[in-house]
Amino acid sequence: MRESDLIARIAQIAGAPPDSLTLEVATGIGDDCAVLRINGRTLLLTVDMLVEGVHFRLDWTDAHALGWKALAVNLSDIAAMGGAPEVALFSFAAPPHLTETWLPALASGLTACARRYGCALVGGDSNRAERVVLDITVLGTVDGKPVLRSGAQPGDWLMVTGALGGSRAGLHALLEANAQGVDLSPHLQPVPRLREGQLARAGGASAMMDLSDGLAADLPKLLQASGKGAIVFKSAIPVHSVALDWAFSHGEDPALFAILGGEDYELLFTAPPDRARELASRIAAETGTPVAKIGEITAEPELWLEDETGQRLPWTFHGWDHFG
Amino acid sequence: MRESDLIARIAQIAGAPPDSLTLEVATGIGDDCAVLRINGRTLLLTVDMLVEGVHFRLDWTDAHALGWKALAVNLSDIAAMGGAPEVALFSFAAPPHLTETWLPALASGLTACARRYGCALVGGDSNRAERVVLDITVLGTVDGKPVLRSGAQPGDWLMVTGALGGSRAGLHALLEANAQGVDLSPHLQPVPRLREGQLARAGGASAMMDLSDGLAADLPKLLQASGKGAIVFKSAIPVHSVALDWAFSHGEDPALFAILGGEDYELLFTAPPDRARELASRIAAETGTPVAKIGEITAEPELWLEDETGQRLPWTFHGWDHFG
Repeated sequence: MRESDLIARIAQIAGAPPDSLTLEVATGIGDDCAVLRINGRTLLLTVDMLVEGVHFRLDWTDAHALGWKALAVNLSDIAAMGGAPEVALFSFAAPPHLTETWLPALASGLTACARRYGCALVGGDSNRAERVVLDITVLGTVDGKPVLRSGAQPGDWLMVTGALGGSRAGLHALLEANAQGVDLSPHLQPVPRLREGQLARAGGASAMMDLSDGLAADLPKLLQASGKGAIVFKSAIPVHSVALDWAFSHGEDPALFAILGGEDYELLFTAPPDRARELASRIAAETGTPVAKIGEITAEPELWLEDETGQRLPWTFHGWDHFG
Repeated sequence: MRESDLIARIAQIAGAPPDSLTLEVATGIGDDCAVLRINGRTLLLTVDMLVEGVHFRLDWTDAHALGWKALAVNLSDIAAMGGAPEVALFSFAAPPHLTETWLPALASGLTACARRYGCALVGGDSNRAERVVLDITVLGTVDGKPVLRSGAQPGDWLMVTGALGGSRAGLHALLEANAQGVDLSPHLQPVPRLREGQLARAGGASAMMDLSDGLAADLPKLLQASGKGAIVFKSAIPVHSVALDWAFSHGEDPALFAILGGEDYELLFTAPPDRARELASRIAAETGTPVAKIGEITAEPELWLEDETGQRLPWTFHGWDHFG
């Protein structure tokens, strides 16, 4: 079963929230965060699990960097709705020999990320296991309406922050045991685009999500939630310099390499052309993060990649699927 | 390193919450839930991880029962503060072959428990791994002040709901491959004492926690948080019938067996004698759950077990410690 089918099945089993809740469930399974309302405030709740051997290897990353990343990927989900993080819970399982120095170093990295982005670590759960599993929950707030995946409109521009493929290039270099001189920071210490997401929300983005499984896999999720299609301009894909280096040295197409890159944690958002233009300059001016127009939303629910010659190819990529 | 030392170390690394939060952190690391305040409402946030081979075995439990238990143990943390659950996030890692029928059955069990206790499943994260890991986060609310572990006063009575040792007896029967005819429900499908906890809170309990690691290990946590001691009357320990059977057939002391039992998910609370008496009858009358007085809180931070002859023995038990 594909991951998306499994999630749809679980959502179906979970059904609608009961009437007895004292808070309102505005958005449940299927967006970057669950959206809840209580006493006039909007809460965002999200969780991400990192599994040793699947998401990280102990010989490739030090504990401090891993702690940072474990929280950052959650903060990225809060960013994807235009929110601000408030508190985090840190659940883990680890072999006993890691408790003396490795786990405290990981907690330090996690705390460094929490402090950097104005979040507090307030609880969690500790367990023994043969392999490390980290699971972080973040509760955030958002001023006004959060940006969902489902709001894209025909004619909206498709925008992306930063550059893509950098994390994938770092991972490939590590897999080839050829990482000397390669900048691994996009892979090991991703930056949650919190301020960028807040600016996009305030400036009228119509839909937004963060890129964790790669544009190839994530863009279809935004389009499906919105019931729309898109044309992506291949030459407009912002390719990370680390990905450019890797693609050139391996004879690969840089844009295609970047489209398939997972774990970039950049923001993908849509907005009407005027707002999109204004948002791109405002975000770049305030945060220093470039924002590129990579395509346009269409009414027809089809997804095309348009190359330099104007030729349109169907979007047949497969991004990361945990059960694929 | 012991689990309690590791948690204390992580709490020290985490430090105090930043001033920038728009919600107030009333209680962070070290109680059953983190307690947060926002716009006049009190939120409870808790997480529990279950690891295959540590907390459960796939050949001992069916997926539906495991899904129930995975949520129930979290609801027990909400119960321990006198709160009500609102929403849950379900994070898991599992081998791909379990996605077709096993994971949906688990989600059904989780949803059955959620519906029974008025809670909604609103999000989560799915991952591949060689062994199953389940991590559930629950957000709850509480009317008024939650009951913390730290409020026990000298002279308070020490009360426990239900009976102890039933889960441990079931586990031992499974370990001995001798579980035919043994009631495994205390071990496989624990009941979160939500209504009991709400009544204890409303009726003036001074301190409360749920028993997940056994009275042997958990009572010292409540006493340490309160800075108090206690005398426990061995003959007053309510021993579960399954534990009685197991202890008699194996020549063990039933009360000592029950004190060491983990995963009972009963509530341990303290209250001044008059309130404790009234609470015991009110809880029993409304929920059918018996409540027993098992001891008294003392000003001196020492913990004694008093036997039938009036002899006092120091509390030298060791309960479950993940890293011990």
